[in-house]
Amino acid sequence: MTQKKVLILMGSDSDLKVMDKAAEALKGFGIAYEMHIASAHRTPKKVMDLVGGARQNGFGVIICGAGMAAHLGGVVAAHTTLPVIGVPLAAGSLGGVDALLATVQMPPGIPVACVGVGGPGATNAGLLAASILAVHDEKIEGQLGQYRKDMVKKIEEKDAALQQRA
Amino acid sequence: MTQKKVLILMGSDSDLKVMDKAAEALKGFGIAYEMHIASAHRTPKKVMDLVGGARQNGFGVIICGAGMAAHLGGVVAAHTTLPVIGVPLAAGSLGGVDALLATVQMPPGIPVACVGVGGPGATNAGLLAASILAVHDEKIEGQLGQYRKDMVKKIEEKDAALQQRA
Amino acid sequence: MTQKKVLILMGSDSDLKVMDKAAEALKGFGIAYEMHIASAHRTPKKVMDLVGGARQNGFGVIICGAGMAAHLGGVVAAHTTLPVIGVPLAAGSLGGVDALLATVQMPPGIPVACVGVGGPGATNAGLLAASILAVHDEKIEGQLGQYRKDMVKKIEEKDAALQQRA
Amino acid sequence: MTQKKVLILMGSDSDLKVMDKAAEALKGFGIAYEMHIASAHRTPKKVMDLVGGARQNGFGVIICGAGMAAHLGGVVAAHTTLPVIGVPLAAGSLGGVDALLATVQMPPGIPVACVGVGGPGATNAGLLAASILAVHDEKIEGQLGQYRKDMVKKIEEKDAALQQRA
Amino acid sequence: MTQKKVLILMGSDSDLKVMDKAAEALKGFGIAYEMHIASAHRTPKKVMDLVGGARQNGFGVIICGAGMAAHLGGVVAAHTTLPVIGVPLAAGSLGGVDALLATVQMPPGIPVACVGVGGPGATNAGLLAASILAVHDEKIEGQLGQYRKDMVKKIEEKDAALQQRA
Amino acid sequence: MTQKKVLILMGSDSDLKVMDKAAEALKGFGIAYEMHIASAHRTPKKVMDLVGGARQNGFGVIICGAGMAAHLGGVVAAHTTLPVIGVPLAAGSLGGVDALLATVQMPPGIPVACVGVGGPGATNAGLLAASILAVHDEKIEGQLGQYRKDMVKKIEEKDAALQQRA
Amino acid sequence: MTQKKVLILMGSDSDLKVMDKAAEALKGFGIAYEMHIASAHRTPKKVMDLVGGARQNGFGVIICGAGMAAHLGGVVAAHTTLPVIGVPLAAGSLGGVDALLATVQMPPGIPVACVGVGGPGATNAGLLAASILAVHDEKIEGQLGQYRKDMVKKIEEKDAALQQRA
Amino acid sequence: MTQKKVLILMGSDSDLKVMDKAAEALKGFGIAYEMHIASAHRTPKKVMDLVGGARQNGFGVIICGAGMAAHLGGVVAAHTTLPVIGVPLAAGSLGGVDALLATVQMPPGIPVACVGVGGPGATNAGLLAASILAVHDEKIEGQLGQYRKDMVKKIEEKDAALQQRA
Repeated sequence: MTQKKVLILMGSDSDLKVMDKAAEALKGFGIAYEMHIASAHRTPKKVMDLVGGARQNGFGVIICGAGMAAHLGGVVAAHTTLPVIGVPLAAGSLGGVDALLATVQMPPGIPVACVGVGGPGATNAGLLAASILAVHDEKIEGQLGQYRKDMVKKIEEKDAALQQRA
Repeated sequence: MTQKKVLILMGSDSDLKVMDKAAEALKGFGIAYEMHIASAHRTPKKVMDLVGGARQNGFGVIICGAGMAAHLGGVVAAHTTLPVIGVPLAAGSLGGVDALLATVQMPPGIPVACVGVGGPGATNAGLLAASILAVHDEKIEGQLGQYRKDMVKKIEEKDAALQQRA
Repeated sequence: MTQKKVLILMGSDSDLKVMDKAAEALKGFGIAYEMHIASAHRTPKKVMDLVGGARQNGFGVIICGAGMAAHLGGVVAAHTTLPVIGVPLAAGSLGGVDALLATVQMPPGIPVACVGVGGPGATNAGLLAASILAVHDEKIEGQLGQYRKDMVKKIEEKDAALQQRA
Repeated sequence: MTQKKVLILMGSDSDLKVMDKAAEALKGFGIAYEMHIASAHRTPKKVMDLVGGARQNGFGVIICGAGMAAHLGGVVAAHTTLPVIGVPLAAGSLGGVDALLATVQMPPGIPVACVGVGGPGATNAGLLAASILAVHDEKIEGQLGQYRKDMVKKIEEKDAALQQRA
Repeated sequence: MTQKKVLILMGSDSDLKVMDKAAEALKGFGIAYEMHIASAHRTPKKVMDLVGGARQNGFGVIICGAGMAAHLGGVVAAHTTLPVIGVPLAAGSLGGVDALLATVQMPPGIPVACVGVGGPGATNAGLLAASILAVHDEKIEGQLGQYRKDMVKKIEEKDAALQQRA
Repeated sequence: MTQKKVLILMGSDSDLKVMDKAAEALKGFGIAYEMHIASAHRTPKKVMDLVGGARQNGFGVIICGAGMAAHLGGVVAAHTTLPVIGVPLAAGSLGGVDALLATVQMPPGIPVACVGVGGPGATNAGLLAASILAVHDEKIEGQLGQYRKDMVKKIEEKDAALQQRA
Repeated sequence: MTQKKVLILMGSDSDLKVMDKAAEALKGFGIAYEMHIASAHRTPKKVMDLVGGARQNGFGVIICGAGMAAHLGGVVAAHTTLPVIGVPLAAGSLGGVDALLATVQMPPGIPVACVGVGGPGATNAGLLAASILAVHDEKIEGQLGQYRKDMVKKIEEKDAALQQRA
Repeated sequence: MTQKKVLILMGSDSDLKVMDKAAEALKGFGIAYEMHIASAHRTPKKVMDLVGGARQNGFGVIICGAGMAAHLGGVVAAHTTLPVIGVPLAAGSLGGVDALLATVQMPPGIPVACVGVGGPGATNAGLLAASILAVHDEKIEGQLGQYRKDMVKKIEEKDAALQQRA
């Protein structure tokens, strides 16, 4: 069984810095990914082209980052039955609550897996994609288990440092 | 110059009762319209087919009603340069604030003309479509002027009735 | 490869009616599932017992429905690397925005895949679980494709009925 | 048929920097416009004078930018049947949600076409005005089509640059 | 010194039931008032006529009740230097938060005295008008003092009844 | 008739910079005022002492500025029948929506006249206090009329400058 | 050591049905309590009398339920150093978010222990009061432990019933 | 009777600066405390270990600070019957409203005593813990009384300084 890749889409190049966190999470597990700038509103054809052929091209999960009236996740989900993860981004003056509601409140029939707003959400999107691929991949499963242990270790170290504070 | 028609789309047949208010407003001015159920998520191809040919088919304005993560207005606007009016509908438990933000907060480049949530918004969508067509149509302009006068008269009658209250 | 099952947890038996929609979606694809009432706050040990052994017991995805300060998804995700889907439920007077934020805004490191509030979210949780299993299962992938076609057909029928309206 | 002009009003000179984005969008299409500072609350007479004669003075669309309890769009719409576009601005500490609701939630009878909060909304207001004028103007319609193609090209260039990133 | 009257305006006759609470509060103090239906958007001229002559016609305070994008208070305040009290009403699906923000967030220069949403706010609008008139009217001041004592008595009676509960 | 003074209270000295705007507005009309720091929670007795004797000490209006769970306006109103103006201040991370709701949503019986959040609200509190005193004071009424004319002039000058922009 | 009593205050007799849940929770542990209707705004003196003598009268915790601009918890806390628990109640059209913010966002110096909105919060207020008294009372501590076990048992029974569903 | 200690937990070392305010408040009264970094999601076992033995280890109150989907308070409360104080922290772009709702909206059965968002809440958490310990500790009760008097004195000094301002 060939390992599936992850397709990362974002609506604008200004989203790149945040969405790189999703890529970093995948990189940590050695999961292959491709990143593209493709707007649901400005380049709908490009989105459809990328998404329509995604499963055939070896992708197993699609991650979509978008801000404001963030339609990217929903539009992508409308054109594929692959699991779609939506990362709402904080653009403009409303703190990302617009992107959050526009991503998470999908009508019944076309699901989007929404994660938190901004950078923490992007990191979690990468981890969630890994956990989806890990359902049938013991290697990634093992890596996720190790990632958890590393988090525990880091917190224990920080807590130990706190105890040393005069 | 042939009068342009208005295309009214809604994401679900459960939106029909509210979106009929848009149709009623148009009917009052004798403006021709077509209504279709077409979901941005469940029937994206149908949406594109309806919208892609809209200008050639004699439509001048498109009205889109949708609830929850209401992407219909944005998706339609992505496929046409006709003016697109979005009516956010109150579905689910958030009172329509999800549909409002998902409709109004369009990123720069692809505008949607958002009106209020639910029935009042649907009525105003019809009136706004009429006012758009009236930019180059003196007959509709005159009808809109009359509509305003009728509203004044109705309020004056109600106010007179209030003054009669013992 | 044995087909993975889906574990559906909910914080209270009052959530059952909504969470049954997730089960119905799975049933439609012939995906096996188990449902349990298990509260993150009132029965944390039960939650950990169910979740800790989930992967070994053949589960591939966990769906968690909870209202108010909905911690169930996050607590479950803390104890497994399986993909966890959170369904925020509308309990109390805030329309479910409390459960939504408590589910979706997970800190980086422990992802939860959040869907919409209430019934539509529960249906989508079932569909999302199916799409996750379908990454490595062509049969479910085919069923999801058919499900999409059925939705299109239903909308076309409703639209046709609308066109018949006098 | 003489091309209609666009009237851009804003409640305060502090709104100028944002509202210039609407003007820039119009300038890109060669559409004539006039900009005025006129407050619904502080200079209601000036607003009425500007708006009352707008249609006769060759204006086809009015764009109104205002923050806080943003009444400008509604007050303008009360005095004209021209299409009125409202741009809610983020002033004060609430991120513009006050201006958004005060602009979009118009009661039935007097529509305002609301766009997004702040700069993206101002750009879209200009584009929406252009699309309204384009309903009966093939030249602007063609320019809007070209504008869309330019956006696609820019995104393709940025995506190509992303693919070159080491 | 002749006692000033209170002018009560509301945007729609559907607001009458709530705004009657303001009238009742005034009636309790024997303060004369007039009520009118007059919409800031649909009958702006009527609003200006009523407000422009209000001071000369013996009014000392103006109370304005309106829902949704509630501009009535602000529009009235733009045309008078009399104290204007705004009562935001809960119309539509947003619970009145739209009317609240559209009433209270007035830009500097034109104040509106906003009270709470709906019925409690309408009652308080009447009491606030009375307290404004009482600044220079010892009789109303005395009545307000008595009103407070009556409230205390009612609560004491209810508390006494509670203590009797088995 | 001796002119009444205005009492300005604020919950913390960190509110002084904003509340000075209320004082400036009063100073512009030559209305006497006193300012005090007095917290509803930390110095309830001081608040009661200042407020209890306010009417006898020649005050006609009380302005209260407070942030977070802003109880100052309500607590002051509980101890006087003078008109109380509440200025919600933006302290902490919620942008002042906490102070706004805690100030405006008074239960029926004890009104507070709420103005907008922060600086614009503080200016308007001063103007509102002036308009309340002007109900029975032709001199202040005249000054308020002049203030409005000055605002018109300033906007006309700014608009003229805008027309000169190349 | 005599067991401390709990004082339950509420702003209105309409709050009684919800606040009874706090009383029921206390009753379950045999903890003595007194309930009073006492409004921070309408009967401030009564509140101060009840609270000022509370510690001397054998009370160890005070629970305050109030809706809208819920000042009761904060006002009570200003007059005692006993732990004060605030229960925000959903009155009016904003779902209790007003009472929640007015209760929880206390400025530094005067804490209020806020629980959830409405009935669930009232029950938890009773349990929290019990847990506070249990800090120095092994009997209540034991009862709280038993209460937790009973909750586990009830959920296990409901889960068992769910497993029996055909 | 040995004085109980306070256990302060926080989900991340980035919360330390804010949570130190809780520690400072306790230090002011000479109340012993321990601080630990322990995440409900990343180190659930560490949380359970710290909390499970807390009562036996001499702790009387637990303070939990966490941001985003702040589950720490609820998870801690699920494992102890000690009073648990939750401090919602403002992390990410939503201003802490996510942490607030995730902390305060606990379902009935497992209470968390929620204080305000961020620094003011952390200070109040320390004070609330002191007031809980003071229920059965006259020394702390006396210190709390003195703390209140010091606050009054500070405000009086600041008010006196304000009166000296030219």
